[in-house]
Amino acid sequence: MAMDTTGLAAALSTERRLLHAHAESGFTEFWTASHVAKALHDAGWEVKIGKDIMNKDFMMGLPAPGVLAKCRDRALAEGADPAFVARMGGGFTAVAGVMSNGPGPVNAFRFDMDAVDVQESGDPEHFPAREGFVSVHDGAMHACGHDGHTSIGLALARMLAGNKDAWSGTIKLVFQPAEEGVRGARSISESGFLDDVDNVVAGHLGILPDGTDRFHCGVGDFLATSKLDFHFQGVSSHAGMSPEKGRSALLAAAATAVHLSGIARHGGGATRINVGRMEAGTGRNVVPEKGLLVIETRGADSALNAYVEEESIRIAEGQAHAYGVNLRVERAGGALSSVSDPGLMELAAACATEAGYGRISHDALPLGGSEDFSYMMERVRGNGGKALYVVFGSDLAGPHHNGRFDFREADLVKPVLTLFNMAGRLSDR
Amino acid sequence: MAMDTTGLAAALSTERRLLHAHAESGFTEFWTASHVAKALHDAGWEVKIGKDIMNKDFMMGLPAPGVLAKCRDRALAEGADPAFVARMGGGFTAVAGVMSNGPGPVNAFRFDMDAVDVQESGDPEHFPAREGFVSVHDGAMHACGHDGHTSIGLALARMLAGNKDAWSGTIKLVFQPAEEGVRGARSISESGFLDDVDNVVAGHLGILPDGTDRFHCGVGDFLATSKLDFHFQGVSSHAGMSPEKGRSALLAAAATAVHLSGIARHGGGATRINVGRMEAGTGRNVVPEKGLLVIETRGADSALNAYVEEESIRIAEGQAHAYGVNLRVERAGGALSSVSDPGLMELAAACATEAGYGRISHDALPLGGSEDFSYMMERVRGNGGKALYVVFGSDLAGPHHNGRFDFREADLVKPVLTLFNMAGRLSDR
Amino acid sequence: MAMDTTGLAAALSTERRLLHAHAESGFTEFWTASHVAKALHDAGWEVKIGKDIMNKDFMMGLPAPGVLAKCRDRALAEGADPAFVARMGGGFTAVAGVMSNGPGPVNAFRFDMDAVDVQESGDPEHFPAREGFVSVHDGAMHACGHDGHTSIGLALARMLAGNKDAWSGTIKLVFQPAEEGVRGARSISESGFLDDVDNVVAGHLGILPDGTDRFHCGVGDFLATSKLDFHFQGVSSHAGMSPEKGRSALLAAAATAVHLSGIARHGGGATRINVGRMEAGTGRNVVPEKGLLVIETRGADSALNAYVEEESIRIAEGQAHAYGVNLRVERAGGALSSVSDPGLMELAAACATEAGYGRISHDALPLGGSEDFSYMMERVRGNGGKALYVVFGSDLAGPHHNGRFDFREADLVKPVLTLFNMAGRLSDR
Amino acid sequence: MAMDTTGLAAALSTERRLLHAHAESGFTEFWTASHVAKALHDAGWEVKIGKDIMNKDFMMGLPAPGVLAKCRDRALAEGADPAFVARMGGGFTAVAGVMSNGPGPVNAFRFDMDAVDVQESGDPEHFPAREGFVSVHDGAMHACGHDGHTSIGLALARMLAGNKDAWSGTIKLVFQPAEEGVRGARSISESGFLDDVDNVVAGHLGILPDGTDRFHCGVGDFLATSKLDFHFQGVSSHAGMSPEKGRSALLAAAATAVHLSGIARHGGGATRINVGRMEAGTGRNVVPEKGLLVIETRGADSALNAYVEEESIRIAEGQAHAYGVNLRVERAGGALSSVSDPGLMELAAACATEAGYGRISHDALPLGGSEDFSYMMERVRGNGGKALYVVFGSDLAGPHHNGRFDFREADLVKPVLTLFNMAGRLSDR
Repeated sequence: MAMDTTGLAAALSTERRLLHAHAESGFTEFWTASHVAKALHDAGWEVKIGKDIMNKDFMMGLPAPGVLAKCRDRALAEGADPAFVARMGGGFTAVAGVMSNGPGPVNAFRFDMDAVDVQESGDPEHFPAREGFVSVHDGAMHACGHDGHTSIGLALARMLAGNKDAWSGTIKLVFQPAEEGVRGARSISESGFLDDVDNVVAGHLGILPDGTDRFHCGVGDFLATSKLDFHFQGVSSHAGMSPEKGRSALLAAAATAVHLSGIARHGGGATRINVGRMEAGTGRNVVPEKGLLVIETRGADSALNAYVEEESIRIAEGQAHAYGVNLRVERAGGALSSVSDPGLMELAAACATEAGYGRISHDALPLGGSEDFSYMMERVRGNGGKALYVVFGSDLAGPHHNGRFDFREADLVKPVLTLFNMAGRLSDR
Repeated sequence: MAMDTTGLAAALSTERRLLHAHAESGFTEFWTASHVAKALHDAGWEVKIGKDIMNKDFMMGLPAPGVLAKCRDRALAEGADPAFVARMGGGFTAVAGVMSNGPGPVNAFRFDMDAVDVQESGDPEHFPAREGFVSVHDGAMHACGHDGHTSIGLALARMLAGNKDAWSGTIKLVFQPAEEGVRGARSISESGFLDDVDNVVAGHLGILPDGTDRFHCGVGDFLATSKLDFHFQGVSSHAGMSPEKGRSALLAAAATAVHLSGIARHGGGATRINVGRMEAGTGRNVVPEKGLLVIETRGADSALNAYVEEESIRIAEGQAHAYGVNLRVERAGGALSSVSDPGLMELAAACATEAGYGRISHDALPLGGSEDFSYMMERVRGNGGKALYVVFGSDLAGPHHNGRFDFREADLVKPVLTLFNMAGRLSDR
Repeated sequence: MAMDTTGLAAALSTERRLLHAHAESGFTEFWTASHVAKALHDAGWEVKIGKDIMNKDFMMGLPAPGVLAKCRDRALAEGADPAFVARMGGGFTAVAGVMSNGPGPVNAFRFDMDAVDVQESGDPEHFPAREGFVSVHDGAMHACGHDGHTSIGLALARMLAGNKDAWSGTIKLVFQPAEEGVRGARSISESGFLDDVDNVVAGHLGILPDGTDRFHCGVGDFLATSKLDFHFQGVSSHAGMSPEKGRSALLAAAATAVHLSGIARHGGGATRINVGRMEAGTGRNVVPEKGLLVIETRGADSALNAYVEEESIRIAEGQAHAYGVNLRVERAGGALSSVSDPGLMELAAACATEAGYGRISHDALPLGGSEDFSYMMERVRGNGGKALYVVFGSDLAGPHHNGRFDFREADLVKPVLTLFNMAGRLSDR
Repeated sequence: MAMDTTGLAAALSTERRLLHAHAESGFTEFWTASHVAKALHDAGWEVKIGKDIMNKDFMMGLPAPGVLAKCRDRALAEGADPAFVARMGGGFTAVAGVMSNGPGPVNAFRFDMDAVDVQESGDPEHFPAREGFVSVHDGAMHACGHDGHTSIGLALARMLAGNKDAWSGTIKLVFQPAEEGVRGARSISESGFLDDVDNVVAGHLGILPDGTDRFHCGVGDFLATSKLDFHFQGVSSHAGMSPEKGRSALLAAAATAVHLSGIARHGGGATRINVGRMEAGTGRNVVPEKGLLVIETRGADSALNAYVEEESIRIAEGQAHAYGVNLRVERAGGALSSVSDPGLMELAAACATEAGYGRISHDALPLGGSEDFSYMMERVRGNGGKALYVVFGSDLAGPHHNGRFDFREADLVKPVLTLFNMAGRLSDR
């Protein structure tokens, strides 16, 4: 298919800048999601929002109600469509477009919408600053390229709607909140929205060094991970007068931290445990009543991670009992291990070539990180479907999650074409 | 009462040496107890043995059945009366004599019979060695004077039986096993044998420096204590191949030891916790399956000790849970806090004066140690009776529990007279 | 001495309200100290300020330079005398007045000036709110009566200056910063300013229940205490990629907290250890670089506290070594144990009687708390002098350190008279 | 080369049984080593013994002097040659034969001689029991085939000496003590005895399932490991009277155990840490004076193991400091990682084929265990030489280190032939 991409490039740039300026953290993407919903609707897609495609029991690391309300109001003040926003209250910010086009398979593409909690650089050397589209939200920045992902998704939506002869079957375009912290995907996967999907595909911009024109046709591993918060609740007392009446949540948390590190290594592969933060107590002479541990487990595969997670919780329970305090475990995020389907990798390579990529890696990339798209991959695979995660290269101005991160806007075109080609080729698979 | 004590002194010396030579550890006093039973019987006392006066549920730190059987056989080989020994199988070695002598109160005197697990000195400077009556049992020695206590008790038995005009009411002479490790008294107290007792009295030889001719008419405190063994049972595995399959009882025990020391101090008074011994594991490359902690709690009073004991057990439970192992708590001994009755102290002082003691302390001695006679004291007090614990001074050749410990045999006479006087004076109280 | 106290009462009330409204935390008493300095100067006293009477090496828990500067500027804006404030830069807010009056002993009286970090109640039921003199400084309140202490001290200064026939020798009136947190006294004591003092006296308002008209003529114990901050500095690293490159300050701090609690009890008396607060780490997936423990040790006497402090530091050093991190120990406060001189107690009782107190306790009050006046007491005692700490009762509207704390202003009169009487009686001792 | 192996098989069987019956633990192989020395001497080899080829500073896990003396006397009583034994006093039980045969390379073969601390089965089903050659030493058994290794080595010695036309250069046959626990090889390697060696070869019987006729021509990895004993020395005290005077070696050891398990995982590969045994303390009411931890570290390579070892020691040092006790680290064993030379593997495969092996594996076997032959391999490789470790299959009657372990005696023939062939082929390399 020959295509004039000049207009596409311009549209991608414009939309990306708009999204970039309205960077929103996980589950607060009210402006972004309403922009997406409106764009999908305008392009002729059936629009699903929030509870349509999210299972609330699996929304992890949800901000406090007050924060959600404040961000929602901010989005409205910034012009978000009230009708759409009304369906997103409480952080239900996922959006999907569904379009059926005759018989054929159900194929899904996933794009993540959230920003990173990073302060964007105002240095004129920083392209968004120079061009005047830095984030208007203090402390939130699209420093991982999700603004690009979302604009690719919307461009793809328009192109698919405008070229229905190029594909058949049903397509679901999923715009996910809260990928940062691996918090949002599971609620979508557990909603059942993807249960009829034959192929599910996602991709990420950047990652590869010297990336422009490079395409990596599959990711070969994702580390499984759990993000857990352990909240200990003890009893305070005067440490001098009646230490025996206190129940130190600080000591329970400290003991847990120490013993967590001692989780036995696993003969089956690499595991990780980290206590990233601890906060406990108030006054010097008071037996501390509250303690918090912010932890992360990882495993080379889901079973290994589950081993570490189970050990962690048992250790925390034991220490809570030992110190006579209460424990509440909060699941703040999580991802599975998963692998890309070799057949889809091959097909992606062909589509990328067709889309104009010059440097294509055919082997699976060992990413060494975690992605909650893994929940969607495993759900689809569990139902007999196939899954793929690709990498779209781009030259980067700064590292991911850094205040000077930026990709080349011109590198947004080939991803759209690649995915459009895939939608076509997947029509008869 | 005027009394020629020459014969008494000789009899005490003879009997004491016999007992000293047959030193037997707690609950294995088969020879000693059968000697006592026979002596009481011969002197006209009704004899109670073993289960008559012991509640088996409260025998603490009982030796293994094999050890008990071996010691019983040894006693028989050394001439113990088979009829009596037959009633002591399994460590039921308590003996009591009961004699009624008309109307009057029920008064009880308690004597302990067991030896210490210490190797007796063979040095000719050591009086028992020089005189040829060192313990014939390797590793067991009367290094705390219980041989003296038992001979005092038997001399008292004979004197009371031979002078029934000097007292009235009922007298119970209790010969207790296993005072060392505070293991034996509770089983007697819980049998109910002392439930009709109006006054219960015990005493200890030695303790006071420069002790001959000194008498301390009461003990003002006993530390409450619990002796606990924590047995951890885990799962072994090859530490290199599959560490995750193991459940280290060693780590659970080690963690418990560390956290036990952290039991919060108590605003209500002094507490103590000690882990005296830990044994865990076998091979270097095996995840350890078994772990043992030998601990001791103390408190200035019974409530404080109970606090430490409860904390200890909860901590061990918590660590067992944290490390995924099983915990069994074994009670190996215990004693309460208790105090001597001021009225009885006064009466004891008078009796001691009459018995010829020259230096008498009237105030309560802060002993700073534990005695399981406290169980009998608290039982009798709980029933409205009175309790007393006195100290009979004697010059000592070495410290208590030392292989060179010895008291002056001549110092056995005044205790007998003092107690005999008390029996008389208590007849009408 | 007969004295019309109507004017005195009015003056005390006025000055107290002024001080109350300008509540300032430890080492930031710029307004208060400059008010004191001016009042002493106006009353004819030689005025010593800051470095004259403070040893900077022993100022503990000093606020950050920025905080000090801000509070200084605030005081100036509120009308503090710039000349005095200039001599207090950096928290040197101690003030003293010295007056010589012929031959005789050197007697010192100490008053503390700082407020508590508590938000004052605005409830009209609260007397200062009703009368319009609540603290104008958010989060700082005279909730422990130091405003009363300071006004007593200034009234005493004027009375002594106006009645020089009533006393002789030299008098030093010490106005101390930062008694809360036991941070300020030591710097004065270590300056040597009290080294020629024969008698040093301080007192506290309140404390006793139903206190008006009650006087306690001496405190029999002060708990020794140390306030320590342990700062751990490790090395951060990515917890998933290279955990071995990190050095977790969180784990070092947690381990220290756990092991601190295990400091062995002391046979010589009560000890305490508390970890009141712990903060460590930042991101969930980062090995934590920094960790802080806020701890407090106590002992029934200075030696017992020193034992706990030494153990604490050794434990923290050991854990720092074990976890390969650096440790910095910051001394944030401290107090010694001390006792009041029986002779001075008797004299104080007589003076209090003379001052009109109706209910006088002659025995030493077991306070069960800590006071850094103990540093001055021990310094003076070490030089052969005598020390006394008394309690001036007053009916209280709320507990000490509570936002509704208040004393009866009328109860400020008798303390002034008592101390004035003491100054006279001490003239010839 | 054609060879009648009937006599060889018979000789191997006879010698193996003799060695099996005299099973001796590491460093106590006095009978075995003297048998080897005599056999080498009788076959015409220059014999090196003990200090000739051992560096005493690297003998690890040496038994106590009393044990060594007792085992030496036992060997003499069992007919060991006194002249040889005299050179082995103190555990210097290594023996080597050296033979030069014209110009050519220096090639070395290593055989280990020690038994395992296992009780041999007396069941008539057990071949050595049925045939009457079970170990005459209680608790020591050749349960890992080292009796076979030694008999292979001696048969090889005789064959090489009798067929000097088949090889040239110099051959060193090394008979090593104490391979179990990886304790003996390093002392030989550090003596420099192998510093002129061009190729060093060792092998192991068994290991492979269904092993008869199988040959594995190289081992691809050895786990590096360190065997460490941590001895803690504290101060005992009475736990009730003066806990503060004690320094609990038990708590220091327990804390170390807990924290050892927390050594951070390494991003570079698998590591292991195990505390296999802990023993500490004596009496229940005594602060424990001594504590022992028996630990093992492992790493996928020597650097990873070194990481764990260094962390371990630092942690133990830190805990010793924290608890105020002394630490002594004793190195009880160790092995490096190493790999077989691919060229030698190929050559070995050819020689094994020639020796009649039917099933030959050409790829490197991932053994997953440790061997202290690795010290010799790395020493020779460090000097520019090559190293090889092969596996000689045999059907086994029970697992290695089990009381019913046994190999097929007939399977001893092919190893001898294989090594003899290698000696020839290595003559000109």
